[in-house]
Amino acid sequence: MKKESINIPFNKPFLTGRELDFIEDAVTDGKISGNGKYTKKCHDFFKKKYGFNKCLLTTSCTDALEMAAILTGIEPGDEVIMPSYTFVSTANAFVLRGADIRFVDSREDHPGMDEEKVEGLVNENTKGIVVVHYAGIACDMDKIMRIADEHDLYVVEDAAQAVNSFYTHADGRQRPLGGIGHLGTFSFHETKNVISGEGGMLVVNDDHFTERSEIVWEKGTNRSAFFRGEVDKYGWVDIGSSFLPSELNAAFLYAQLKNLKKIQAKRLAIWNRYHQELEQVCGRLNIRQPEIPDYATNNGHMYYLVCRDGKQRDALISYLKERDILSVFHYLSLHRSTFYEDKHDGRELPQSDNYSDCLVRLPFYYELTEEEQEYIIRTIHEFEEHFKAHHSHSQG
Amino acid sequence: MKKESINIPFNKPFLTGRELDFIEDAVTDGKISGNGKYTKKCHDFFKKKYGFNKCLLTTSCTDALEMAAILTGIEPGDEVIMPSYTFVSTANAFVLRGADIRFVDSREDHPGMDEEKVEGLVNENTKGIVVVHYAGIACDMDKIMRIADEHDLYVVEDAAQAVNSFYTHADGRQRPLGGIGHLGTFSFHETKNVISGEGGMLVVNDDHFTERSEIVWEKGTNRSAFFRGEVDKYGWVDIGSSFLPSELNAAFLYAQLKNLKKIQAKRLAIWNRYHQELEQVCGRLNIRQPEIPDYATNNGHMYYLVCRDGKQRDALISYLKERDILSVFHYLSLHRSTFYEDKHDGRELPQSDNYSDCLVRLPFYYELTEEEQEYIIRTIHEFEEHFKAHHSHSQG
Repeated sequence: MKKESINIPFNKPFLTGRELDFIEDAVTDGKISGNGKYTKKCHDFFKKKYGFNKCLLTTSCTDALEMAAILTGIEPGDEVIMPSYTFVSTANAFVLRGADIRFVDSREDHPGMDEEKVEGLVNENTKGIVVVHYAGIACDMDKIMRIADEHDLYVVEDAAQAVNSFYTHADGRQRPLGGIGHLGTFSFHETKNVISGEGGMLVVNDDHFTERSEIVWEKGTNRSAFFRGEVDKYGWVDIGSSFLPSELNAAFLYAQLKNLKKIQAKRLAIWNRYHQELEQVCGRLNIRQPEIPDYATNNGHMYYLVCRDGKQRDALISYLKERDILSVFHYLSLHRSTFYEDKHDGRELPQSDNYSDCLVRLPFYYELTEEEQEYIIRTIHEFEEHFKAHHSHSQG
Repeated sequence: MKKESINIPFNKPFLTGRELDFIEDAVTDGKISGNGKYTKKCHDFFKKKYGFNKCLLTTSCTDALEMAAILTGIEPGDEVIMPSYTFVSTANAFVLRGADIRFVDSREDHPGMDEEKVEGLVNENTKGIVVVHYAGIACDMDKIMRIADEHDLYVVEDAAQAVNSFYTHADGRQRPLGGIGHLGTFSFHETKNVISGEGGMLVVNDDHFTERSEIVWEKGTNRSAFFRGEVDKYGWVDIGSSFLPSELNAAFLYAQLKNLKKIQAKRLAIWNRYHQELEQVCGRLNIRQPEIPDYATNNGHMYYLVCRDGKQRDALISYLKERDILSVFHYLSLHRSTFYEDKHDGRELPQSDNYSDCLVRLPFYYELTEEEQEYIIRTIHEFEEHFKAHHSHSQG
């Protein structure tokens, strides 16, 4: 029998159908720079579907975070609290404005920030808290918002992975992630549920930022007010950048948004299949599967496993790779990074380090076929025998 | 006879043929986030055609300028010299890093910065000079580079409008704009000669910035070195942002670059026709046409007129608009902006103000037809009669 020609990447971008039509329409319609017809369609989609107050597409989630850092008025010497187990941009956006970062450890049961460890870091210099909804699974926002209220801090939700995911408050109200803190940021990078290659969005939940958010977005000018006829010419009124994406990206994204329901159904099916069919083998290998807290929903963004140690994780990644399946680890603790190690206050963050060493993400994309997923699951079962034969003795 | 149905925008984006094919190919090929196949093709195009050392596509020229501000190490208290008659981003990029801006007046014969007025502003805090090649026409780079050498300053060329434009040094060598200063920045905004909706590029001419430029571009990580196999994992090593554009934008741009020769020929034909056919009427109306210095080439980026005063300029714009032709003014002096007025050192910059008041840009895009251009030229001739009848008495 011929060797299986299956070759499974970790991620694969996809077309839902109308992406190229919409791009062509934008050109024909005479506008492919930012803030055109498709940008507005995307904004309207999010406002209508999730009840967001103000949405602004950006060129990346990084840029949305930079807008948040500017809007919250971060200055040198201000402190911002955030998890260490996150993407560099969560921190870099605030460091660019001069902030010192106080990194928080992850939860034992989840890579998200340990909410219980936040309040002890608050001091007179603290300006805000950035929560990261890892894998699209909500942090416990009631706890975070209470701390923020009590100490008068801004909350920015890094909801890069959390489109179409929700949090249920203690009082039973369910709200979309990105819509709870003062500001929320999303990503439409090609690894996300809905994509535009690179891309992101700022959601402004606190009205007091609304007017300035448009100015910062439009390079520090009052151009948006000008086009609404509120001022008779526009000029330089504030700091800002070119945060808005091309209509090419907005048109592509809009085609995806129109298929959000279908995309989400597919992704949840993939997630559930991994979860069910790997339960037994993970139990036997001491590998932890994701846990979804009662207050959180699952948006099928990512399927990860937490291996019992780094050696097992690396062995699994290698085993899959040799069989043409690309699984990948994720963040390296930022408090240990070359850039921040000597700026960090020295606290140990063992859970963050543990996820850096032990977490692995399985291939996950819209066009992953049942056959491909079956092959991945079967290969992980085969890994069990391989691992037990070669590595178990080292566990003593 | 029916009213002519002609309706001429100021600008119109265009497809040269393969833009959508290339985008589709990027998706099929499995990568639409940044730094993929088409990004490399664009980099290679520019390196080969213009001999640029290092190119990095960005999401906008604004972002390329922000990279320049980071790379040149701008800190609070540093001063940067640049023209007042420029886009806000030229200044904002440096202000975001804490710079104070010393604005320079424009030349009497050209909206570009008056090179003679630069050296007097240099002091111990001066870190760099940003030249803006207005309308794609070179500043006198020999003069600028001499000042920079003498005072140990960085030179950043804001070549947003200057793709495929050249400067001839006193010794006869001709070099592409953006390739002369330590760093150069380009724009591919939809109003430019080659476009990707929003988009830009940083060109690194001084080797000493090359390694760090890749890091800053990739969100402050050494990801580029990782993919070249130079380090075994990548992490956070510096400040930076998500400066790289999606492959959607790079694919679109690459299709345009393949047609650069055709685009340039068409644009120069449009420019030359405006120049020749408006010469007489401009002379009679005391309107100035663009002048191209001996050391500069013309890249057919823009056709502008400088009216004798603001009243005449506004009358011309209105007259054209009533006849469905959209002509537009350009920058407002940044030293007079709401944001910078009280930070400016108080010097009068009369030429900059004059261009703010009197300059008008005529419709200019790749698909402008001969018939449309004829209609614009004819309408400006008709304006002459109208203006003489209604406004000339006010000149006394």
